[in-house]
Amino acid sequence: MTYCVAMLLDTGMVFLSDSRTSAGVDQISTFRKTAVFQKPGERVLVVQSAGNLAITQAVTSVLRENIEAPGEEPNLFNSRNMFEAAQCIGDALREAYRRDAHALRQFALEFNASLILGGQIRGEAPRLFSIYPAGNFIEATAETSYFQIGESKYGKPIIDRVVRRTSSLNEATKAGLISMDSTIRSNLSVGLPLDLVLVRRDRLEVARHISIDDDNAYFASIRRRWSEALREVFTQLPEPDWLRGPQWAPERRAAD
Amino acid sequence: MTYCVAMLLDTGMVFLSDSRTSAGVDQISTFRKTAVFQKPGERVLVVQSAGNLAITQAVTSVLRENIEAPGEEPNLFNSRNMFEAAQCIGDALREAYRRDAHALRQFALEFNASLILGGQIRGEAPRLFSIYPAGNFIEATAETSYFQIGESKYGKPIIDRVVRRTSSLNEATKAGLISMDSTIRSNLSVGLPLDLVLVRRDRLEVARHISIDDDNAYFASIRRRWSEALREVFTQLPEPDWLRGPQWAPERRAAD
Repeated sequence: MTYCVAMLLDTGMVFLSDSRTSAGVDQISTFRKTAVFQKPGERVLVVQSAGNLAITQAVTSVLRENIEAPGEEPNLFNSRNMFEAAQCIGDALREAYRRDAHALRQFALEFNASLILGGQIRGEAPRLFSIYPAGNFIEATAETSYFQIGESKYGKPIIDRVVRRTSSLNEATKAGLISMDSTIRSNLSVGLPLDLVLVRRDRLEVARHISIDDDNAYFASIRRRWSEALREVFTQLPEPDWLRGPQWAPERRAAD
Repeated sequence: MTYCVAMLLDTGMVFLSDSRTSAGVDQISTFRKTAVFQKPGERVLVVQSAGNLAITQAVTSVLRENIEAPGEEPNLFNSRNMFEAAQCIGDALREAYRRDAHALRQFALEFNASLILGGQIRGEAPRLFSIYPAGNFIEATAETSYFQIGESKYGKPIIDRVVRRTSSLNEATKAGLISMDSTIRSNLSVGLPLDLVLVRRDRLEVARHISIDDDNAYFASIRRRWSEALREVFTQLPEPDWLRGPQWAPERRAAD
């Protein structure tokens, strides 16, 4: 499994992904799920991927090949805008589908690959896309400040509660790391190290690309402090004696 | 969708379920997902259900019919122990499967129903079971203090962090309500009113069965205060300036 989240903010973008890949619990490895394609000053594109690793690696390979040996179709280095770049990824997915889906089906395997594309091409504002296995995609609008792929549910509530378009890159990074912590605690197949990529608006290059591992003191401290603070908040919340029948809770007759 | 959670504690059990049923977003109704079967002083059994409503209602009907017109097979009112009661539910599921699964498959519908059974029969300690669509089931052991069915992921992290076998019924109820709040915020198809059932160890009857709706002042206050406290904790956690390259975060070369 995988967990990736990408946030689109007024001042830039934050991309965070784990790096654990599992094909059953006895076959766990580390693979990067974030790829950066950039021409500094002209364009910066970040691609995150979740799903069947053979498929997502094939997609990334095709995207790189098309840059190295450009054909008539647009590629990630010459697409006119982010929408066209998202189409490149959709096309690469469809190529992988044509090649692999039939064979996968014979082994009762689903064609399972989702990607996130975010970034900025000169002349446009930063844009963020979520690309489905069928190669179609949606774009974040003013009401959407993030997309997730993979094991997204455990880490969604905290992002919903605190991340807005107006959040700073550092605030959003903090929310992303807490979201990742909740996911890692609940799903063994999501694991360290994490890939963190920060992109500032209109700089047209990656600002920071950081690998966060067990020995990252900040991540360790935020995990511990978040957990302690949650338990403290929980303890401080009022706790009525339900067994004594508080007046604000109308009782139902015990059925049957 | 549905969210149900049942917690097994040293001093009893807490059952919490929502009541929203959706067959597409334009067809949303309220159905109770908790059924209580009790002979006070002799046995108390609580059944929660998630999945296809037609199936879970059929299962509950069969369980009631078998009590009203007992045959040779055990039913929930004469089973010798909780294990046999769980088998009754498994058998009712398999009966529904035999009748409906083929027809459902013709409409490309999955046979989808999961149940939780918890309670106590005189002579045994309280026991908790999670019953799968195939009618097989698992029982909570000393290391397991809860089971969830339905839309379980959004609300799992908080329960993992705070609920232990030693938690009081009131603490566990508070954790359940916060867990339900996180789920309701993230999934529109989980909704009020909630059914809360409390069972005290060795009392062999339901202690309280409460319906919690929008107008429940405690639930409203805990939702608001939990949300405010999370945001405050989040704000107070340290927030390094990632863009300036803190020394505790080894930088990776921006790839490509």
